[in-house]
Amino acid sequence: MSTLVEPVRVHTVEGGARSERDDLLVTEEPLEIRLGFGPLDDRKEMRLSITMRTPGHDDDLVRGFLFTEGVIMEPDQLIRVVPCLSVKDEEVGNVMRAEIDPEVAIDPERWQRNFYTTSSCGVCGKSSIEAVQVARHAAMAPWGSIDTNIITALPERMRAAQTVFRHTGGIHAAALFNREGDLLCLREDVGRHNAVDKVIGASLFDGHGASDGILLVSGRAGFELVQKCVVAGIPLMVAIGAPSSLAVQLARKHGLTLIGFLRDQRFNCYAP
Amino acid sequence: MSTLVEPVRVHTVEGGARSERDDLLVTEEPLEIRLGFGPLDDRKEMRLSITMRTPGHDDDLVRGFLFTEGVIMEPDQLIRVVPCLSVKDEEVGNVMRAEIDPEVAIDPERWQRNFYTTSSCGVCGKSSIEAVQVARHAAMAPWGSIDTNIITALPERMRAAQTVFRHTGGIHAAALFNREGDLLCLREDVGRHNAVDKVIGASLFDGHGASDGILLVSGRAGFELVQKCVVAGIPLMVAIGAPSSLAVQLARKHGLTLIGFLRDQRFNCYAP
Repeated sequence: MSTLVEPVRVHTVEGGARSERDDLLVTEEPLEIRLGFGPLDDRKEMRLSITMRTPGHDDDLVRGFLFTEGVIMEPDQLIRVVPCLSVKDEEVGNVMRAEIDPEVAIDPERWQRNFYTTSSCGVCGKSSIEAVQVARHAAMAPWGSIDTNIITALPERMRAAQTVFRHTGGIHAAALFNREGDLLCLREDVGRHNAVDKVIGASLFDGHGASDGILLVSGRAGFELVQKCVVAGIPLMVAIGAPSSLAVQLARKHGLTLIGFLRDQRFNCYAP
Repeated sequence: MSTLVEPVRVHTVEGGARSERDDLLVTEEPLEIRLGFGPLDDRKEMRLSITMRTPGHDDDLVRGFLFTEGVIMEPDQLIRVVPCLSVKDEEVGNVMRAEIDPEVAIDPERWQRNFYTTSSCGVCGKSSIEAVQVARHAAMAPWGSIDTNIITALPERMRAAQTVFRHTGGIHAAALFNREGDLLCLREDVGRHNAVDKVIGASLFDGHGASDGILLVSGRAGFELVQKCVVAGIPLMVAIGAPSSLAVQLARKHGLTLIGFLRDQRFNCYAP
């Protein structure tokens, strides 16, 4: 727990009265992802991105990010993910190196943070949706009929497993469940994209079977989260919050079942 | 309203019963920001970034983004912001051109999305905080004593002015208030960073006086939102949700008053 939360002295004001007490904050630190081509050749190294994240499960984050952003197309294109030790002391733990199979042809255009920044596609909703098609890895089988009792039970199962939220109230979560609603993998992160990447990174590379799973996210369902779900081939995505217009369009295009506004015994189905 | 929300047909499941109805979704579309050097010379143009945003107030978004990300240091370094018309039909409205005074020396390193990606600073919390110092524009006067009644009244004033949230329940908001708690500017966006950039862009360039204002955000206070507040010289930031560790460190470093977990008559002061 020590890296996930940090203690802070805080003043609480309630009904006009002021008191001082100890509290816990969710930790936020930058993480740099570098690509290495060949396992031991440090000279062939490239900075890919920096994200603000909560430390912990950084190897999952790197794997999930590379996969859902289309940098690698198959898990075996990644040799290993290791912390960079040839950095300044204060950076140790905040720089990860992903060693890519040197035989893999990496398209520099895809190193951009998001698909729709590549020069081949235009800047509009339609182009954004079409760009995801290129990076999609797994064929997605339709989810079929929805068991209401399984869906409405998911939030409580996620909350029960969330350790950082319980202490700080300030962190996003993503969780993968199997078809019966059993929790397979939970990750918490200050960044909603990171939480999803950590779950997908852990699941796809450890063989949890995301292709028959349910992804639950604690917040809203924007385009980029649905994009990650589609690329990973997860057939059912459930959000506690609302989806955006483009997220619904993308889900419908790919046959992803998208549920939102899940509260108690009530939810909305937006797609297919 | 027509560009801010889109109609959707949705299935609602409640207590096991399924019904079909019309609903509204918040619109999400990509926006590309291009820098132009000199007002009429299209050849000197550079793609700066793409963000997923809710259309509307895009000129505010561009101004606020350029300012809070340190691309420009003063409002008068920006000649004007205009929609690009030399694009494909389906891209019209999604590409904005910011014309920079050709006399201004722009540092390409600062075009990166975030300060801490520049080569001069390390990848750690301390370096991230120090990098913000470089781009800070306005000196910040300490806020002084906090009037509890003004703070606790802010969320209801913001909600009352939020048109898109009322229809969709799925959008972030940021609002600038004056010292007495009167609403000066409200912006809603599917992206939390965009909502803040739109408010800052509108306020700094229209002379609303952000340097004596209160910024209220509908979500959590992460490092990047506090960064924008510090760079813009806004002395008091209030979040409905929780701050992160690095956000609190940054606020304390700059004497920004940071309030979080604002609920009814209760809130926490994390800084100074």
